[in-house]
Amino acid sequence: MDIRACLFDVFGTVVDWRTSVSRDLAGFAKQKGITGVDWLEFAVEWRKRYQPSMDEVRSGRRAFTILDVLHRESLDKLIARYAIKGLSPTDIEHINRVWHRLNPWPDAVAGLTRLKSRFIIAPCSNGNIALMVNMAKRAGLPWDCILGAETARAYKPTPEAYLASCRQLGLAPASVMMVAAHNGDLKAAKAQGLATGFVARPTEHGPGQTTDLVADSTCVDVAAADFVDLAAKLRC
Amino acid sequence: MDIRACLFDVFGTVVDWRTSVSRDLAGFAKQKGITGVDWLEFAVEWRKRYQPSMDEVRSGRRAFTILDVLHRESLDKLIARYAIKGLSPTDIEHINRVWHRLNPWPDAVAGLTRLKSRFIIAPCSNGNIALMVNMAKRAGLPWDCILGAETARAYKPTPEAYLASCRQLGLAPASVMMVAAHNGDLKAAKAQGLATGFVARPTEHGPGQTTDLVADSTCVDVAAADFVDLAAKLRC
Repeated sequence: MDIRACLFDVFGTVVDWRTSVSRDLAGFAKQKGITGVDWLEFAVEWRKRYQPSMDEVRSGRRAFTILDVLHRESLDKLIARYAIKGLSPTDIEHINRVWHRLNPWPDAVAGLTRLKSRFIIAPCSNGNIALMVNMAKRAGLPWDCILGAETARAYKPTPEAYLASCRQLGLAPASVMMVAAHNGDLKAAKAQGLATGFVARPTEHGPGQTTDLVADSTCVDVAAADFVDLAAKLRC
Repeated sequence: MDIRACLFDVFGTVVDWRTSVSRDLAGFAKQKGITGVDWLEFAVEWRKRYQPSMDEVRSGRRAFTILDVLHRESLDKLIARYAIKGLSPTDIEHINRVWHRLNPWPDAVAGLTRLKSRFIIAPCSNGNIALMVNMAKRAGLPWDCILGAETARAYKPTPEAYLASCRQLGLAPASVMMVAAHNGDLKAAKAQGLATGFVARPTEHGPGQTTDLVADSTCVDVAAADFVDLAAKLRC
């Protein structure tokens, strides 16, 4: 392997969306005097609408639309379903941007900083540019640039999402490693010729998680316990 | 002004293309035993073809094409005109990528680092993503993300180059400052509603420079002597 760049899945791989979203919204609800909502359930319900909302774009039924907009459409439906009252337009926008305020897993910043010393590092996420930049500024994620769905105008696991990111870096797919906590993402990247790195995130979905506990050896080149372990395995 | 992000012109504003290209190529020519070429003249001739090559895209006569490709087309013509012999395809590609190896003006990294503490900082250059990323890795430019022609699929001063960059950051143009050493760039940005910052680069074109020595007060909000002065004027 002659790797020059590492691309990263972000939601679940770099940041802990489940805990971040639920705690942030619970705090905001308390400020606003909103009661009776289980915010962990709310976060999980919101996330359940993530893949279906992107499927509209992947299928070609809908023109490329950034994730902030898809998140907002799902949020509007959830607010109605949970019958949450008293939110101003500014409040709803603040809630929608909770995805810009996700906290990294404890090893992420240290691991990325080491990986950056040797490789170009960039997200290849379905999150849009503003979401990724605001998250990085807040969390200290030291990206070299922001790639992914918005620059590719395609949602993973569509091949173009991976291929456009390599092309925009001027690199052959074989010189780029896709890093994710999700075997499905890595399988799709491997099918386009990228190298692959699996990082275990066994509590992304909570304590009873049953998926993606171990790397799928049919599509994973390097398996690591966390980002610091990945940096060590890539000799950073 | 409520500025949240600063976008930067790069060639001439952040980096000294004239000295960087000529010195790099003179050194490479010496290694290769190529004599009889004035590399400063060569750099200036190459740069003269920069605007005309982008005009093909701006006019709609040509589909969007990244700058690495436009640079390469100009280079091939110049190599023929200067009758330079004995270059392998790898050599020519190395020469073409001299634009990835430009050195920053002495104040650029320190000024950008200060500006980054308060604002999102990103290039809004006509250079493509790979060019900007490779330059930043080598020169230590601490961008938060890479925006500009390739993400906008439009070359400055086309309005879309500025507007797409603001949109991709999720910001209104009035919350974004375009920073450049070229009044023409700032005039075009101001016309789209961006705030503007002028930084003087009085030797970009050599000791006899006559253009862009001072800010055009009709389109410039903040004029600074260099990036450190700009950071001070923006209270970073």
